[in-house]
Amino acid sequence: MVTLGELAALLGLPPEDTDSSLELHDVAPLERAGPGDLAFLADRRFLSTLRETRAACVILKEEWADESPVPVLRAQDPYLAYARASSLFDRQSPAPMGVHPSAVVDPSAQVPSSASVGPGACLGPKVALGDDVVIGAGCYLGEGAVLGRGTRLAANVVIYHGVVLGEECRVHASTVIGSDGFGFARKPDGWEKIHQLGIVRIGDRVDIGAGVTIDRGALDDTVIEDDVIIDNQVHIAHNCTVGPRTAIAGCVGFAGSTSVGADCTFAGQVGVSGHLEICDNAHFTGQARVAKSIEEPGSYSSGAPLDSTSVWRRNAVRFSQLDALHRRVKALEKALEEALETTTTSPANNPAKSGAQSGEES
Amino acid sequence: MVTLGELAALLGLPPEDTDSSLELHDVAPLERAGPGDLAFLADRRFLSTLRETRAACVILKEEWADESPVPVLRAQDPYLAYARASSLFDRQSPAPMGVHPSAVVDPSAQVPSSASVGPGACLGPKVALGDDVVIGAGCYLGEGAVLGRGTRLAANVVIYHGVVLGEECRVHASTVIGSDGFGFARKPDGWEKIHQLGIVRIGDRVDIGAGVTIDRGALDDTVIEDDVIIDNQVHIAHNCTVGPRTAIAGCVGFAGSTSVGADCTFAGQVGVSGHLEICDNAHFTGQARVAKSIEEPGSYSSGAPLDSTSVWRRNAVRFSQLDALHRRVKALEKALEEALETTTTSPANNPAKSGAQSGEES
Amino acid sequence: MVTLGELAALLGLPPEDTDSSLELHDVAPLERAGPGDLAFLADRRFLSTLRETRAACVILKEEWADESPVPVLRAQDPYLAYARASSLFDRQSPAPMGVHPSAVVDPSAQVPSSASVGPGACLGPKVALGDDVVIGAGCYLGEGAVLGRGTRLAANVVIYHGVVLGEECRVHASTVIGSDGFGFARKPDGWEKIHQLGIVRIGDRVDIGAGVTIDRGALDDTVIEDDVIIDNQVHIAHNCTVGPRTAIAGCVGFAGSTSVGADCTFAGQVGVSGHLEICDNAHFTGQARVAKSIEEPGSYSSGAPLDSTSVWRRNAVRFSQLDALHRRVKALEKALEEALETTTTSPANNPAKSGAQSGEES
Repeated sequence: MVTLGELAALLGLPPEDTDSSLELHDVAPLERAGPGDLAFLADRRFLSTLRETRAACVILKEEWADESPVPVLRAQDPYLAYARASSLFDRQSPAPMGVHPSAVVDPSAQVPSSASVGPGACLGPKVALGDDVVIGAGCYLGEGAVLGRGTRLAANVVIYHGVVLGEECRVHASTVIGSDGFGFARKPDGWEKIHQLGIVRIGDRVDIGAGVTIDRGALDDTVIEDDVIIDNQVHIAHNCTVGPRTAIAGCVGFAGSTSVGADCTFAGQVGVSGHLEICDNAHFTGQARVAKSIEEPGSYSSGAPLDSTSVWRRNAVRFSQLDALHRRVKALEKALEEALETTTTSPANNPAKSGAQSGEES
Repeated sequence: MVTLGELAALLGLPPEDTDSSLELHDVAPLERAGPGDLAFLADRRFLSTLRETRAACVILKEEWADESPVPVLRAQDPYLAYARASSLFDRQSPAPMGVHPSAVVDPSAQVPSSASVGPGACLGPKVALGDDVVIGAGCYLGEGAVLGRGTRLAANVVIYHGVVLGEECRVHASTVIGSDGFGFARKPDGWEKIHQLGIVRIGDRVDIGAGVTIDRGALDDTVIEDDVIIDNQVHIAHNCTVGPRTAIAGCVGFAGSTSVGADCTFAGQVGVSGHLEICDNAHFTGQARVAKSIEEPGSYSSGAPLDSTSVWRRNAVRFSQLDALHRRVKALEKALEEALETTTTSPANNPAKSGAQSGEES
Repeated sequence: MVTLGELAALLGLPPEDTDSSLELHDVAPLERAGPGDLAFLADRRFLSTLRETRAACVILKEEWADESPVPVLRAQDPYLAYARASSLFDRQSPAPMGVHPSAVVDPSAQVPSSASVGPGACLGPKVALGDDVVIGAGCYLGEGAVLGRGTRLAANVVIYHGVVLGEECRVHASTVIGSDGFGFARKPDGWEKIHQLGIVRIGDRVDIGAGVTIDRGALDDTVIEDDVIIDNQVHIAHNCTVGPRTAIAGCVGFAGSTSVGADCTFAGQVGVSGHLEICDNAHFTGQARVAKSIEEPGSYSSGAPLDSTSVWRRNAVRFSQLDALHRRVKALEKALEEALETTTTSPANNPAKSGAQSGEES
């Protein structure tokens, strides 16, 4: 529970004339919020919902305040203010300080008294945890792994030897950081493993979802910079670098040695080839197939649109004939132009020349 | 081991004149089944295999019974009858009842005596297990998680706080249910986490594969309804709802807040954008890119077909010129029409008009 | 640390005239290698980097040796020689022999004294480990699982009952082998589970990444043959077979009952449908959609190229009109031909016939 007055103060928002002792017990969407619920409005398309809300209080923009039937908090960015408020209503119990008796901690590991090590967790030699670090149940940290202050691992996370995470990172369950990169040299009868001698270095405030895999580097390191956010089931191969504040949605895969700039966004299931350079502020829509370096900021896409399977099948067959079709159109253009030249001598009268050639070159 | 008579009774199939004491020890494919093996025939294309089978008994349709050289069981749906029979031949040992001494169970957790809690499993405060629940080794259940009667978790599954699973569900290894949804508000220097205050609610008889991730909702819940089946490595983002009996194959990804109807099927690697509505009985072929809501039942596809890389490369280049090609064809149509108008005054004699315009509009 | 002389001997490379007592402490890329570092050159494009290297020693081809300012080792395949050398510089501590006191090992399990079983690992009844096997922390091995000599599991790997791995395999963290295949028979009110009675059989020297899932067979087994290498987050469905030395990159998915030949390569995110036959030496580029059997060795691709989203959107719309466009071009060809026949009687003078028809059939 938080009062309206406390909330305004916590969010740094201007106090309102309304009852600052109003109690807020939960957050809810505008349309189903009731007494005791905080709600927010971030998009003017939902102004009509605002007019009928039964929320205790709504965070919104100054310009919408007059439309609200209930008390408000005015914010320049209501969505950001809601995000900040959301932490106050998170009912998750804090992790208990200290090392659970069932955890296995090497005597050489550094575990400050403010840290929490869950049941069955295993910390190898020379692991170093910062203050307030939380290690979930069943996690494994290999020799020499380092976690900065306030970093939290959910259950069953695996951090391989030597991996370094900064401060205030959050890693969700079953994620693996520092597994071997996929490096092999072909030999006549199979593959010779290339031992992966680099590590993974992760900056501060990096948020990593569940079921993610980030491989250690072969010789150099794999690097994730500050404030990167990574959704579930993302795969980042060895020697990639990801610039600050870049956001990576679910199921995206990066092949090895690709360098991604700052402030990029990758929608779900994007695939990125190896050894590419992606500039800052490049954005990719879902399932994009990124097989070349990107030098200009902007939005990029690939793929073909969804259709009913019967329609799609007819069009997909034609994809395999696209180059032939181009050649047929080019031949038509040439044939029409030649035909017109045999029937007229006036170029101004030749629509094929002025019209059909207006498309891009073939 | 089961006898033919027992099997017929268990499957609710009509008893046969054949020796009901015939012993069945295993199930095997029709072509390699031998004495003691049960086999089945579900497709008339394999009738020739039936005629040569050495199985002890074959489950098949009434109409094929005369073709069998061996005893039969007649079923309206032989594949379904085989599925039911398969449970009799599963040699997996039952999980031992009770809590393994190495498990860590909070005193406030409810664990009925018929439940099984495996080695190293960890049950947080107020976890509630139904009768006959099985918790595999190394699983973690957060505070207040609820599992209905007969639900089984394989090893190393993580169920976050507050998540609810119904009865008779099955969850395979390393799956994560209830991790935080990927919700962040942009701020000038990075991202503000939106605490994910909803839960995941899963119905009865839901089957979930290995390495799956299902995120908890932001404000509302993520909901998987009864009888949904989910294959390995599927990702379901926050606030999705999946209707009853829908089947989701491996590596499919759903972005947030998408609503899926009943009886849908998603083939492997399909990607579904956020905030969509998918109606009942919609079916998607492999790798389909679902970026719009679906209002009509039916089968949907996207993508371009596989070719040899050299052929593909030529056609793929042409994809990037498709709009230009359309404009060239349109110009050709116009040019030809105009040329014909200058050489003839009879529209009936103008094949460009009657023929070239018969395609869809440009 | 290893001396140059020792390294040459270990790699089977010809001894050099240079100081064989030169000490090598690490491996590094040619451009940043310094004193004490071993480097390698595998591509003549980097010869200019070689000329300026400060490495202690460079592995390279005979023909490049004269260009090196520092001692060399001559190898026919420098990349393979580097791969072999890399193992000497891997600082990962060896796993301690013996069973950790927190591990739970069934009395009927066979664990040789040379094996290592990590903290919290759980070995079911009749598990059989070969010599020098390493079981990471938190792993679970179901009843009757068999691991051949020298095979190593990282942390939190799950091996289901009955699964067999050969010798010298390596499995990375959170991988699951032997989960149930996705097999269900439709019934009126839902799905009847088909119990998966086969196992997974994995050959020798198979390398499996993190977060991989390989399902057990329904009746027959899922089979991965010798020397296969598999990257992170790959999904292999029930009853697939993968031939020797095939390489599978990250996030690839195989549907059930597909048979893959020897020496194939799958780039990232390739999707392979079920019940296909892929011949030996077939290679697939990233995100390829493999929906038909492959009978000829070679390289295969699918998909459409990346463009800026605004350009892509225009072209993608046209994909849905491809068949209509083909019909329009065909109509144009016919119309032009007929128009030309009405204006000329000389076929030799008809460019539409000789030109426009040179494309493939429509």
